[in-house]
Amino acid sequence: MIDFRSDTVTRPSDAMRDAARDAAVGDDVYEDDPTANELEARAADLVGMEDALYVPSGTMGNQIAIRTHTDRGQELLCDEQAHVYKWELGGIPQLSQVQPRILDCGDRGVPTAEQVRDGYVAEDLHRPGTGLLCLENTHNSRGGVAVPKAAIDEAAAAAHDRDVPVHLDGARFLNACVALDTEPSEMTAEVDSVMFCLSKGLGAPVGSMLAGDAEFIQRARRIRKLFGGAMRQVGLIAAPGLLALENVDRLADDHANAARLAAGLNEIPGLSAPAPDTNIVMVNSEAAGLTGEELSAACKEAGVKFHAFGEYTCRLCTHLDVDEDDVDEALDLIAAAVADA
Amino acid sequence: MIDFRSDTVTRPSDAMRDAARDAAVGDDVYEDDPTANELEARAADLVGMEDALYVPSGTMGNQIAIRTHTDRGQELLCDEQAHVYKWELGGIPQLSQVQPRILDCGDRGVPTAEQVRDGYVAEDLHRPGTGLLCLENTHNSRGGVAVPKAAIDEAAAAAHDRDVPVHLDGARFLNACVALDTEPSEMTAEVDSVMFCLSKGLGAPVGSMLAGDAEFIQRARRIRKLFGGAMRQVGLIAAPGLLALENVDRLADDHANAARLAAGLNEIPGLSAPAPDTNIVMVNSEAAGLTGEELSAACKEAGVKFHAFGEYTCRLCTHLDVDEDDVDEALDLIAAAVADA
Amino acid sequence: MIDFRSDTVTRPSDAMRDAARDAAVGDDVYEDDPTANELEARAADLVGMEDALYVPSGTMGNQIAIRTHTDRGQELLCDEQAHVYKWELGGIPQLSQVQPRILDCGDRGVPTAEQVRDGYVAEDLHRPGTGLLCLENTHNSRGGVAVPKAAIDEAAAAAHDRDVPVHLDGARFLNACVALDTEPSEMTAEVDSVMFCLSKGLGAPVGSMLAGDAEFIQRARRIRKLFGGAMRQVGLIAAPGLLALENVDRLADDHANAARLAAGLNEIPGLSAPAPDTNIVMVNSEAAGLTGEELSAACKEAGVKFHAFGEYTCRLCTHLDVDEDDVDEALDLIAAAVADA
Amino acid sequence: MIDFRSDTVTRPSDAMRDAARDAAVGDDVYEDDPTANELEARAADLVGMEDALYVPSGTMGNQIAIRTHTDRGQELLCDEQAHVYKWELGGIPQLSQVQPRILDCGDRGVPTAEQVRDGYVAEDLHRPGTGLLCLENTHNSRGGVAVPKAAIDEAAAAAHDRDVPVHLDGARFLNACVALDTEPSEMTAEVDSVMFCLSKGLGAPVGSMLAGDAEFIQRARRIRKLFGGAMRQVGLIAAPGLLALENVDRLADDHANAARLAAGLNEIPGLSAPAPDTNIVMVNSEAAGLTGEELSAACKEAGVKFHAFGEYTCRLCTHLDVDEDDVDEALDLIAAAVADA
Repeated sequence: MIDFRSDTVTRPSDAMRDAARDAAVGDDVYEDDPTANELEARAADLVGMEDALYVPSGTMGNQIAIRTHTDRGQELLCDEQAHVYKWELGGIPQLSQVQPRILDCGDRGVPTAEQVRDGYVAEDLHRPGTGLLCLENTHNSRGGVAVPKAAIDEAAAAAHDRDVPVHLDGARFLNACVALDTEPSEMTAEVDSVMFCLSKGLGAPVGSMLAGDAEFIQRARRIRKLFGGAMRQVGLIAAPGLLALENVDRLADDHANAARLAAGLNEIPGLSAPAPDTNIVMVNSEAAGLTGEELSAACKEAGVKFHAFGEYTCRLCTHLDVDEDDVDEALDLIAAAVADA
Repeated sequence: MIDFRSDTVTRPSDAMRDAARDAAVGDDVYEDDPTANELEARAADLVGMEDALYVPSGTMGNQIAIRTHTDRGQELLCDEQAHVYKWELGGIPQLSQVQPRILDCGDRGVPTAEQVRDGYVAEDLHRPGTGLLCLENTHNSRGGVAVPKAAIDEAAAAAHDRDVPVHLDGARFLNACVALDTEPSEMTAEVDSVMFCLSKGLGAPVGSMLAGDAEFIQRARRIRKLFGGAMRQVGLIAAPGLLALENVDRLADDHANAARLAAGLNEIPGLSAPAPDTNIVMVNSEAAGLTGEELSAACKEAGVKFHAFGEYTCRLCTHLDVDEDDVDEALDLIAAAVADA
Repeated sequence: MIDFRSDTVTRPSDAMRDAARDAAVGDDVYEDDPTANELEARAADLVGMEDALYVPSGTMGNQIAIRTHTDRGQELLCDEQAHVYKWELGGIPQLSQVQPRILDCGDRGVPTAEQVRDGYVAEDLHRPGTGLLCLENTHNSRGGVAVPKAAIDEAAAAAHDRDVPVHLDGARFLNACVALDTEPSEMTAEVDSVMFCLSKGLGAPVGSMLAGDAEFIQRARRIRKLFGGAMRQVGLIAAPGLLALENVDRLADDHANAARLAAGLNEIPGLSAPAPDTNIVMVNSEAAGLTGEELSAACKEAGVKFHAFGEYTCRLCTHLDVDEDDVDEALDLIAAAVADA
Repeated sequence: MIDFRSDTVTRPSDAMRDAARDAAVGDDVYEDDPTANELEARAADLVGMEDALYVPSGTMGNQIAIRTHTDRGQELLCDEQAHVYKWELGGIPQLSQVQPRILDCGDRGVPTAEQVRDGYVAEDLHRPGTGLLCLENTHNSRGGVAVPKAAIDEAAAAAHDRDVPVHLDGARFLNACVALDTEPSEMTAEVDSVMFCLSKGLGAPVGSMLAGDAEFIQRARRIRKLFGGAMRQVGLIAAPGLLALENVDRLADDHANAARLAAGLNEIPGLSAPAPDTNIVMVNSEAAGLTGEELSAACKEAGVKFHAFGEYTCRLCTHLDVDEDDVDEALDLIAAAVADA
């Protein structure tokens, strides 16, 4: 079975497994875990922030950021396809008592300065006031779009002009940096906090990093405890996380494989797939007379797994557990499945 | 000063004041207030529902409905200009832990069946599930649009097909019924609850009605208590409310005055105002080189009050305390103010 | 039927009704209602605070105060019998995301300085931090206990030493002032906000006042809007409220009637009632072999209404709609009902 | 440094580290991690429940249980020293909009049937209604008290008589079972859900188990996602968790060491320590003229770490990283530190 469901399915390497076995550990609730401490320092450094925090999931990292930046009753500006709004189970109202104000950012995946200005609400007797702008890079539901630094900076500047802080949901942030050849610390230069996952294309088994200034991370640490994300001898999973940070350059392979996959899908009659920015391929099967669910089911039977993402759309993710040969084999299997369907 | 800020500024008539003085009263927390009980029965009857509840404001009526229909963590579908989303201080997340999912309903003010279908989210591991569709009629921020019964019914049917209940924010519901010559109970035939205000064009000093089936109202009564809206000898303000129900037909005068006002504004160089459906006139002042704030300020100085509603837009409401002569006088004052600005 | 269920059942006097009819009104959401403005100024003056806000109920006044004083996630210190904790439907967690920390204040009804110190929690990684001390005077569920200024001041000082603000739930605050012969502004000298009801012994049909410093009331006004408590031409009910403020001295009559009632109940075989501080009489019926529910039911049949308040306890409230003769008649009816039961 | 701060400081054994390295893994969000699946099955079996869920912390396990069992606005009954109420940062109101109703369970650590009956609140117009009874075994803040099955069953029966479900916070649940020689599945026979930690005396690096019936765990899985506790290749930490389940019998050593420690502390002039039920020793230093903070600081300097837990009280936990010799050495160091202080 070739698995394109998500880059979250990647398995830790032997080196990561050895690192887990050999990790120096301590009780991280007391900040006594040397491996977690090292990982947090390295992650902060990578994104040019003062401090960072290891969290069990990207969802928790984002929701901690939202909670830490806002007051109850404020609004959060984000794209209508933002992960924080669409895929995190209504955490924004439930965990932060905050109301999303939605922008249609289109294929660009990030609001223009004008959209931020228009979406901004000043606090008054009738209106909540905007408390946070949330950006996403790469943008998952927009098809792994790599948003250039200039677009991030433009949106962030418009928010900061109104004293609104900016959080970057960077579940696949390093994919964007690699695709655009931008230093991570450059990409985050104008945002106030960033979350990025160790457990997707970087291959770590568990965990994400939330980075920001020291005072923000101190408050975030307390919210992590509230949400139940404070763990004990976390070095066992932080150690593979340190090796994951070595995997940044290899994301380029995933992007090449995704480009190869999209090109191949385009050659299958009835399928079309725009050239991807990063490791996410969106394929449309309407011309083949297949819904996304039907395409996904037929291919699963043939040995290729991926998810339907819309009525006639499926999403395929490349990652370190699929190589060029897997891509080619998958294309053959998909072509046959479509032909038979 | 001619006051077009809102139809909420209407003052009770002498008959209403006398009714307040003479009202039979009791402790409404014990359901012992005969006047409130009568008002609730009459209001339920008017909109063809089993029962109704008197509440201190339209905001409370809407927020009680949202809370009573939903579970925490669900989504609420509404127009991006909906009052419940835009003007109620983030009550949706704060009082109900619910996430708004926003539709752009355009000038129509109400979603199509397709928009409801597309906006609907089935509950799963990652997504909250849709718990309520909220409609608005007349639609305030869309310019007092009177939404026809057929459009309400279409949206409601699409929601009900997915077992999603429907609440109608009818702050100016009776304006819509009068403008469209539709019986109130026809207009609400396909929704599960409706809130309408006694304190706007109907002229009551205080209060709104929330109506629905008996079981819904029983639960809503408890949420009213939670929100602090259960009052005691409420007959004093319920009695004018009963008279307000006699004022439905006179809303046609407000609509005629609004049409006269819009026509007159269109003749003032630099101003334009679409013909209104009901009692809300939206006027654009961009061609006069005036922002909404500037137009509003200049007119206030000249003796005419109304609010800016956007960068180059102002909103004017007609109501029972402005008559045809007031409209004509206001037009003269506005014309002079624009000429001098 | 003689009604001792609550002093909330009092009906407005003819003077109040006339005042309602004749009230100067405006839209109070725009702060344009002169009667509400006057009432707020007079109420603030009475309790020696900078400003005050008219709210539809005591519950709303308390919950606005809790919300305005605290941040989400803090703790609120109060007696285990406090109205805000016991009778307000879980508003503390639901409307303010705050956790009650409970003290057993015994018959005194108010915590000692030591209890405040012990109950206080400093914010740290594991603990929420104390955000508010809530006192109650008179203390309803403790039997209308009038808490002396010295006890209020002692608890407040202990809170202020830890930078914790203090709210006084004074639903029957003026009963305490009259019973203890203390000026209202003296009684509140050391608290940060106070809520008192116009609609209980003072006889107004609707409404309560929340008072505090100007900045607190400004923020409270916004929370009132969020909770749906902002009303329009509220002068109709604010006008009787102004007359209610003239009724302070007559609360002494209610206290005398309560004392007479308790003395009479003690003479009925099987009943015992401690001498009341104010207008609330708690009667125990265990020796009569009657539960509270049974006593209440038997007396209701005989023409006297009151509520069971515990397994063998009932609560009777005196108020302006029962006089000395009513008390005597009620005692005869209760004696007969107990004898027959 | 001998570390008695908590049994959370225990480090994984070499066998656990090897198990981590060699673990079969998959994406646990898709329920594809075979090791997590095995651990959940084994844990469910151990406590006699239908299903179980691996969570990153005991706090998350408890808060998921509270959220899954309750509706917003209900009350939760628990001891005033309960971990869920005292040490989880106000998660009850913030994550579940639930109000704690507090019982003083004294040294017993668990309410009597009568306390449950008295604390129970039926839902009505003014009161929230009781939604959950939360028990704790062993009881941390009461000094590691091992609560017998009979007491758990008594409290649970009283709750069930009122249709109130029961959650058992068993952070150190297996310590109670070992101390009382009760089968885990017997101890939980009458409760509806139980959380127990793998990361305390059992020695796993990370994680806790929440067990209940299949439908409960299915809903809990969704709340775990909401709270950000769903992880990916979690087998790396689930594998040591499986070995932790083999460590149950060795908890008896911790209890013996705790008894030895308490006996030794009692011989140090100025200190007194009641004989512990399990692995938690509470020592009072008032007679030594030392506050808890002072004793803790002096001993830390001498090479023994533990926390102050009250004005004159400290808490010491034994665990698998301290043996009999460590206890004896610690006693010498503490004795010297007290003598010098």
